[in-house]
Amino acid sequence: MATRNEVDYVSGRTRLFGIVGHPIEQVRSPEMITAEMTARGHDAVLVPMHVLPEDFDALVPRLLRLQNLGGLVFTIPYKARALALTGDLGAQARAVGAINALARRPDGRLRADIFDGVGCVEAFRRRGIAFAGRNVMLLGAGGAGSAIAVAIGFEQPRSLTIFDVDPARAESLARKVAAANPSVDVIAGAATVARMDVLLNATPVGMLADARLPLDVDALPRELIVFDAIVKPERTPLIELAQRAGCTTIFGREMMHGQISRMVDFFFAA
Amino acid sequence: MATRNEVDYVSGRTRLFGIVGHPIEQVRSPEMITAEMTARGHDAVLVPMHVLPEDFDALVPRLLRLQNLGGLVFTIPYKARALALTGDLGAQARAVGAINALARRPDGRLRADIFDGVGCVEAFRRRGIAFAGRNVMLLGAGGAGSAIAVAIGFEQPRSLTIFDVDPARAESLARKVAAANPSVDVIAGAATVARMDVLLNATPVGMLADARLPLDVDALPRELIVFDAIVKPERTPLIELAQRAGCTTIFGREMMHGQISRMVDFFFAA
Repeated sequence: MATRNEVDYVSGRTRLFGIVGHPIEQVRSPEMITAEMTARGHDAVLVPMHVLPEDFDALVPRLLRLQNLGGLVFTIPYKARALALTGDLGAQARAVGAINALARRPDGRLRADIFDGVGCVEAFRRRGIAFAGRNVMLLGAGGAGSAIAVAIGFEQPRSLTIFDVDPARAESLARKVAAANPSVDVIAGAATVARMDVLLNATPVGMLADARLPLDVDALPRELIVFDAIVKPERTPLIELAQRAGCTTIFGREMMHGQISRMVDFFFAA
Repeated sequence: MATRNEVDYVSGRTRLFGIVGHPIEQVRSPEMITAEMTARGHDAVLVPMHVLPEDFDALVPRLLRLQNLGGLVFTIPYKARALALTGDLGAQARAVGAINALARRPDGRLRADIFDGVGCVEAFRRRGIAFAGRNVMLLGAGGAGSAIAVAIGFEQPRSLTIFDVDPARAESLARKVAAANPSVDVIAGAATVARMDVLLNATPVGMLADARLPLDVDALPRELIVFDAIVKPERTPLIELAQRAGCTTIFGREMMHGQISRMVDFFFAA
């Protein structure tokens, strides 16, 4: 029963979540994940936790002793470093070699996984589109591209072709995905839409005022499904080209919401 | 700019505060202190932090390394134990031997004080009533009584008489207050309203369904100012007796709000 002397969104019974990063001011998880948790009826809040690199190893394991802590999200620069916090890792985290979510069960057990790439798969699933059986072209083998490649690898596509401006980086990612999914045809190769069913952009090309396309094409086939991980702007040059061709287009914002939904599932799993 | 996918009360820029206790579910600081901070225009939230006694010494000093932490409130059973977290103590904390608020300045400096008793003084101040020059009778020398006695000691009353069912406890508190304020006439003595200007109840007598008075009287003089630290019920048997006599009555809720106001001043001081 809130009065003007009380807020109604936090109390002694509220389950606490945090996002750990450096810097911290730019993160969007506090407002977005808190909204998702409360929309599902959980009495919970996710707050920013600014941890300096020199404090990480001594501070974060202690934080996990807070008895009402439900979990932590990890962002730059801690996704790989946080891997050491628990041995109980999901398959995606093991394949990527990084985590972005660590759930603390009420009995103190810790379990971690990474949801960056899962968010992309979830965005497609919500549109009724499966990767299984499709030929997929992924542009970009950096942080976002790695997580997306690993997540798609688990979805049994017919083939996954990975392009990066650094061919060695594309090769290394292809080997990693193939190792986790021996039955999937994964290769590093040139950026093309020939014979592809799905085109995914995980490069920064097209971000903000960048008017370039992430691959060298004049037009796209109408049957192609086009995804761009970029959130700002929503309509990147690639998305605009796809819309002119009449392609199905899936947005970075949908991946973000897909990820948040799957992370909240994870935090409140038994 | 909040959407339905975002809450508007926490973001990456929100300054973080916590209340540390064991147990934690019953605390009221999260909703009340957060309300006071946001009413003053601060982007800040105070969340519950449940710390087990065996974790306190290793965990709490590390928590204070969170760069966006603005401060911690300490409640049962940690008010005395938290004294060791900083050497920079206010006069009240030194006299009481406990803290309930620790401010972390943006440069990492820590300063602590105790505001339980200050809240009582603040409640009187807001009614335009000073303790200076008045004869004060305090009932109860436990945690709340100690903090109130120390805070009143600093206000230069004409006299302060402390009663407790345990005479040794009243004596010990009287010596402590006298030591911090050598010019104040502080004694342990019987519960009486004779020659008193102010009567303060800091015992649990009258709480909830307890129909007893905390002292043996049939009526109160109209000129007496009567305060009861009990919050539930608001109208204790003592308050009812005082209201029948036409006394000025001051409520536990006012002490709570006075304390919150002074703690938020302290958290956001330069």
